[in-house]
Amino acid sequence: MRISVFRKEHFNAAHRLNNPEWSEEKNKAIFGKCNNPKYHGHNYELIVEVIGEIDPETGYVLDMKYLSQIIQEHVTEKFDHQNLNEDVTDFKNINPSAENIAVVIWNILRKQLSEKLDLIITLYETERNYVKYPATR
Amino acid sequence: MRISVFRKEHFNAAHRLNNPEWSEEKNKAIFGKCNNPKYHGHNYELIVEVIGEIDPETGYVLDMKYLSQIIQEHVTEKFDHQNLNEDVTDFKNINPSAENIAVVIWNILRKQLSEKLDLIITLYETERNYVKYPATR
Amino acid sequence: MRISVFRKEHFNAAHRLNNPEWSEEKNKAIFGKCNNPKYHGHNYELIVEVIGEIDPETGYVLDMKYLSQIIQEHVTEKFDHQNLNEDVTDFKNINPSAENIAVVIWNILRKQLSEKLDLIITLYETERNYVKYPATR
Amino acid sequence: MRISVFRKEHFNAAHRLNNPEWSEEKNKAIFGKCNNPKYHGHNYELIVEVIGEIDPETGYVLDMKYLSQIIQEHVTEKFDHQNLNEDVTDFKNINPSAENIAVVIWNILRKQLSEKLDLIITLYETERNYVKYPATR
Amino acid sequence: MRISVFRKEHFNAAHRLNNPEWSEEKNKAIFGKCNNPKYHGHNYELIVEVIGEIDPETGYVLDMKYLSQIIQEHVTEKFDHQNLNEDVTDFKNINPSAENIAVVIWNILRKQLSEKLDLIITLYETERNYVKYPATR
Amino acid sequence: MRISVFRKEHFNAAHRLNNPEWSEEKNKAIFGKCNNPKYHGHNYELIVEVIGEIDPETGYVLDMKYLSQIIQEHVTEKFDHQNLNEDVTDFKNINPSAENIAVVIWNILRKQLSEKLDLIITLYETERNYVKYPATR
Repeated sequence: MRISVFRKEHFNAAHRLNNPEWSEEKNKAIFGKCNNPKYHGHNYELIVEVIGEIDPETGYVLDMKYLSQIIQEHVTEKFDHQNLNEDVTDFKNINPSAENIAVVIWNILRKQLSEKLDLIITLYETERNYVKYPATR
Repeated sequence: MRISVFRKEHFNAAHRLNNPEWSEEKNKAIFGKCNNPKYHGHNYELIVEVIGEIDPETGYVLDMKYLSQIIQEHVTEKFDHQNLNEDVTDFKNINPSAENIAVVIWNILRKQLSEKLDLIITLYETERNYVKYPATR
Repeated sequence: MRISVFRKEHFNAAHRLNNPEWSEEKNKAIFGKCNNPKYHGHNYELIVEVIGEIDPETGYVLDMKYLSQIIQEHVTEKFDHQNLNEDVTDFKNINPSAENIAVVIWNILRKQLSEKLDLIITLYETERNYVKYPATR
Repeated sequence: MRISVFRKEHFNAAHRLNNPEWSEEKNKAIFGKCNNPKYHGHNYELIVEVIGEIDPETGYVLDMKYLSQIIQEHVTEKFDHQNLNEDVTDFKNINPSAENIAVVIWNILRKQLSEKLDLIITLYETERNYVKYPATR
Repeated sequence: MRISVFRKEHFNAAHRLNNPEWSEEKNKAIFGKCNNPKYHGHNYELIVEVIGEIDPETGYVLDMKYLSQIIQEHVTEKFDHQNLNEDVTDFKNINPSAENIAVVIWNILRKQLSEKLDLIITLYETERNYVKYPATR
Repeated sequence: MRISVFRKEHFNAAHRLNNPEWSEEKNKAIFGKCNNPKYHGHNYELIVEVIGEIDPETGYVLDMKYLSQIIQEHVTEKFDHQNLNEDVTDFKNINPSAENIAVVIWNILRKQLSEKLDLIITLYETERNYVKYPATR
């Protein structure tokens, strides 16, 4: 039986939701306050779950200090205190909804981990709204 | 791969645990303080997980404002500041244990969501006791 | 300089807000859903702050196990899984608002503590509504 | 002895720290990532503490539904999903540091409350950085 | 469809990470500060998830008071305020990493539960580092 | 009116409570499980409150990055993953109760801050036991 290990990190960022192929009116109707052209922002809480076997020599699936480092190097240093729409190239053609941010982070971290390990991303946009990718079922 | 989106809502309610087919003594022996005939209560924290595909036009599985509205309309406005045993008809013949409340909420919300979407209910009765329906395995 | 020590305990209870000298209509107008005659309930989180000097022999203001015991004996065992209006005599003539519950608990615990110690009660009715008695200023 | 009542609300906003009388270099040196010209953002948690006497008829210092309404009307509806620097006139000439946001909110709410009541604002910018105005000593 | 019930308990313990088959240098290089020979410690938060059918007579999967008792009797009374490496025989030959502690607890509690029930252990070593055994996929 | 700014940091450490002038029996009777000679441990959460005037040029009482740095340099790097009794000289002659740890941290940080600023230390030993020095009254 395999085990999950979880590391929680965070970043603060500005964003807005907007579909450039829609009119201003439709964007406002669909996204409401989240469409504000001058942006709003969040304290994003990011939980990275890595699933694998326990290494009998260390008792680790992987070293949490290393996991924390790759999250910081590849995700939080790029996203923290940034405007996701304007400053982060990953969202050049992608609307930075919580769902899409989670998928972008999954794609970034997937490349940094051994193929033997599975990866699940949970992202809190607020305490009451959050997403998990991929879903458990 | 599908994604989960989560919305957290809450309601405060009174309840008691009681099986009307049992004697008073047996109810007291099985349910202990939870059987108090004058009721006790909880701040219930409700987490609604909806699983589906991301709509490429919006970046949403579904609009969280809409999800919040249907939870409020169909669940929290009916349950909040109520006595679950006395005021809420869903529990007329069902003991309002955390497990049964979660199943009742699942049945209510299942009808409000597209068949393409899966639904999982997590309900905190206290910070230390909670349930999830259906279970992940 | 003196130091504060804090002990957090909790209890679950049913209550309703009602002023018996008012008409049913006035009670409903003032207290809204909190006036529901069949009660609703809460998970109350109770924080007891005791202020005093550090005993140089123990490094304690007072033993937290002892503080926890007197809170449990005099407060939580009396209030937990009870209907505050119906089951707890302290509220026979007092409306169990969060403010009044905090004052009642302060009066109960004040008698259990040495006069050299100061006492402040914080009571969470929900995560978003809470009270502190006495106020700091 | 008086009692404190607390109401917690929240808003999400974008901001940047910048002193227009300083050079771009000095702003960057002093404010670091918080000076990002394209903004970043936060989930602000706001705790409004009101201090007064308990009304013996209601058991309330003031009705928490009313307190919540005036916070929403005068603060969170104006600040939520906004860019504090660009969209909120209160910050036209004030750098929106957590300290200054707390003072602005105190000044707004002070006018809405009876002079018999004292007011203290706590504002969380992140879970690890927060401010309280006025200070207790 | 089956349901999960969760019970949260906690214990405080000292531990160090060390592989007795490695040199002192290698242990220090791999485990860093966690290898401190004089130990460090944690407030461990333990979440026990039990999966099964709801008993129609009680509305319970199993009585949470009973679940809490078996966790206390078989886990927290043995681990709380102990040095895991020195005082707890389960770790005589096992490095007390969060992963291994979770597996040890799973093996202990598995024997106490009916075969009809599934068991998942989540263990928080800190608020930011935690594990779940077995993993969901 | 002055304002408080708060910075939350954390460290994990082992400790035991013991008075070397007492017999083994008396230590065990007074400190119970906390007297375990092989130690136990905690995730300590440390909240540093600094009180002062807002600098009109920055909008800061003091730069939170600087405050975080001096806490890390003078406190958490010295205490984290250590055995407070054995590894940290500040506790050579002081029993590391939560109360005494808070006073030690206050004395360390008091020297690092301008005399114009006031300082209050809050230290969580567990989620349910914590202390604040100096007390507010």
